[in-house]
Amino acid sequence: MDYRKLKQEFKTPFYLYHFDEIKENFLKLKQVFKARKSQIFYAMKANSNLSLLQMLAKLDSGFDCVSMGEIQRALKVGVKPYKIILSGVAKTREELEFALKSDILYVNLESEAEMLLLEDVAKFLNLKARISIRVNPNVDAKTHPYISTGLHENKFGVELDLARKMYLYAKNSHFLEPVGVHFHIGSQLMDFSPIHEAAQLVAQLVKELKALKIELKFFDVGGGLGVSYENEKEPHLYDYAQGILAALNGLDVTIGLEPGRFLVAKSGELVCSVLYEKITAKKRFVIVDAAMNDLMRPSLYNAYHEIILPYNQGEKSLCDVVGGICESGDFLAKQRELEQTKSGDILVVKNAGAYGFSMSSNYNTRMRPCELALENGKIRLIRQRESFKDLIALEENFLN
Amino acid sequence: MDYRKLKQEFKTPFYLYHFDEIKENFLKLKQVFKARKSQIFYAMKANSNLSLLQMLAKLDSGFDCVSMGEIQRALKVGVKPYKIILSGVAKTREELEFALKSDILYVNLESEAEMLLLEDVAKFLNLKARISIRVNPNVDAKTHPYISTGLHENKFGVELDLARKMYLYAKNSHFLEPVGVHFHIGSQLMDFSPIHEAAQLVAQLVKELKALKIELKFFDVGGGLGVSYENEKEPHLYDYAQGILAALNGLDVTIGLEPGRFLVAKSGELVCSVLYEKITAKKRFVIVDAAMNDLMRPSLYNAYHEIILPYNQGEKSLCDVVGGICESGDFLAKQRELEQTKSGDILVVKNAGAYGFSMSSNYNTRMRPCELALENGKIRLIRQRESFKDLIALEENFLN
Ligand SMILES: Cc1ncc(COP(=O)(O)O)c(C=O)c1O
Ligand SMILES: Cc1ncc(COP(=O)(O)O)c(C=O)c1O
Repeated sequence: MDYRKLKQEFKTPFYLYHFDEIKENFLKLKQVFKARKSQIFYAMKANSNLSLLQMLAKLDSGFDCVSMGEIQRALKVGVKPYKIILSGVAKTREELEFALKSDILYVNLESEAEMLLLEDVAKFLNLKARISIRVNPNVDAKTHPYISTGLHENKFGVELDLARKMYLYAKNSHFLEPVGVHFHIGSQLMDFSPIHEAAQLVAQLVKELKALKIELKFFDVGGGLGVSYENEKEPHLYDYAQGILAALNGLDVTIGLEPGRFLVAKSGELVCSVLYEKITAKKRFVIVDAAMNDLMRPSLYNAYHEIILPYNQGEKSLCDVVGGICESGDFLAKQRELEQTKSGDILVVKNAGAYGFSMSSNYNTRMRPCELALENGKIRLIRQRESFKDLIALEENFLN
Repeated sequence: MDYRKLKQEFKTPFYLYHFDEIKENFLKLKQVFKARKSQIFYAMKANSNLSLLQMLAKLDSGFDCVSMGEIQRALKVGVKPYKIILSGVAKTREELEFALKSDILYVNLESEAEMLLLEDVAKFLNLKARISIRVNPNVDAKTHPYISTGLHENKFGVELDLARKMYLYAKNSHFLEPVGVHFHIGSQLMDFSPIHEAAQLVAQLVKELKALKIELKFFDVGGGLGVSYENEKEPHLYDYAQGILAALNGLDVTIGLEPGRFLVAKSGELVCSVLYEKITAKKRFVIVDAAMNDLMRPSLYNAYHEIILPYNQGEKSLCDVVGGICESGDFLAKQRELEQTKSGDILVVKNAGAYGFSMSSNYNTRMRPCELALENGKIRLIRQRESFKDLIALEENFLN
């Protein structure tokens, strides 16, 4: 990768995504489930750039959306409604109405109250809402507490008992049609036993429902596939699939998959420039032109991102890689061994394709970086760098 | 406050700022320093809405900026360049050039390397850059580690010894003119002894420099004034001032003040609506239409924000107030005693005027809320709610 040339053309910081790798990931995941019908619904919260969505749509990906905005993104790139599902604990009436009018595949319900609201909306529109229920199987995903979602103390989904009751209610409603079941116990799972355990529990529910003449078509196992950020041993995709397939023995369902991180995390880089080396009595700092507003994960989750200096050589020493935001919480890496740098050197933050740009902000009135795609050996811009004009567009008309 | 009427007109969620209170805070702070010349430079990182800046500018406020974008905001609302200063550890050449060309009051230098770069830029533009040096006095601000900035292990400022050397260098440079000294040891300080200690140390430096014929005009004590979020005893503004004034005995300097939080935190509210009450075997959740993308502080700093239900009565019980973002880290309050709610009820997150909207993002393709100002008894819109069109404006042209 000729980062210098990219810097010359686009300036830094920028995000760069390797589309070909993302395609490969998509196909690999599809492949391990080939024994059954399966549908990938990419969880676009991880990275919702329109060009990326369009590329995945061409591979026949479906999309897991968690807001009206995300559905709109999918529709914008030409995704067929029957490839779109809607999840999330806080769907508004307006969102549900939009989802039903758009005729998306199904809505993942997260509570009884939401079911009643959806029923009401469906009645109002005089149509039948296809639903799936998100079950919270109370298994510990053993990941960061902020992204662990499968325990009863989390806000997500409903307990098995309640799910059963809701399915019965839905079956008897003129305006609801149960078509699937859903769970998602957490993100960045490096051990698949919790998800396999969850699949067993939920498959059992599906069997019970079948006995009650409620035949579900979709068995949606959520996302959560972990990736290696720091040389951790990456679990095998094959094992992931086998455990799920085993749980589904004897059931005729389409497997729904909602990978976010797995598809995009490792295929994205945040490329920035060194501004200063600062050496105090206590510490060495490498100060760069990207910051926590561009990539929140280190500050928010204490996440590790590999950092490389593609053009530097020589001895390494410990440093913190920090941005220009006025708080100590603004860092990209702590206590990292890096070569000596000088102003202008290029520094690459690896594995930043998921939950990078999508969580970015304008804190400190910093313009969000541009985004580039590498596809078939060609680089192209897929989102322009923000300008000052963009930042004040919704404010300036209200000045006295 | 008739929140219902506001909701009808503007929908939820929205931020509401009490401009009259902010003015009062400004005047109170000005007042406690009346014994000396002082200049408030509002730290706009806390809240950079243009209308808010314009209101403060009319009170003769100066502005502490940390990026080119922030300087542009100040200029946009008509602030005179000599009321603008620039801080931050990662200033780019482009930013320094912009600052010098704009003829702002001074640049707060955070490292030797930055000084040399600024000198080079000034030489290139053939002008003299007014500088101040940010001293890191190595005192413990005793606040959240993410916003504590006055220890040598933090990336900010330079040690006293180095500052001395830098002043001597600057004095002898044709392109640099030392005019001030600066420190900022942390935000949300509830005990002023660390800041007073820092003031003493830095005043000593100013005296030493005076003996070397380096006469500084500005003694910039940064921001950091804490506010009570959770019934903590708020320290007295008067004490804050007295400790600083005491340190400056015998020095003829203008006191620079960079309050952010103090001016705006308590005068801002995030107003949202309840979407669902969700009661699981383990917990009660109040699910609202605002989320961590709108207000990051609870997730990022584990910050406490008071929550009220202005129209609800009856018994209270423990609950978590959460948003719709798909992670358990998305919460506005944990383990809070609140009245029973129903869908549509208005819920107000208090003390959200600082580091609220300014840190907001579009995570989950959520549109950022609108902002309202209350001034002289009148409500007005000061920033429009984002639309889907706004979110994709910089992306959509790159679709195939
Ligand atoms: C319901 C749901 N599905 C899928 C995902 C994607 O998870 P991951 O990126 O770990 O694959 C998430 C992440 O929060 C989610 O909440
Ligand atoms: C240099 C500087 N000045 C002022 C402030 C404002 O601090 P506060 O909001 O605590 O007053 C900050 C906050 O980060 C800062 O870094």
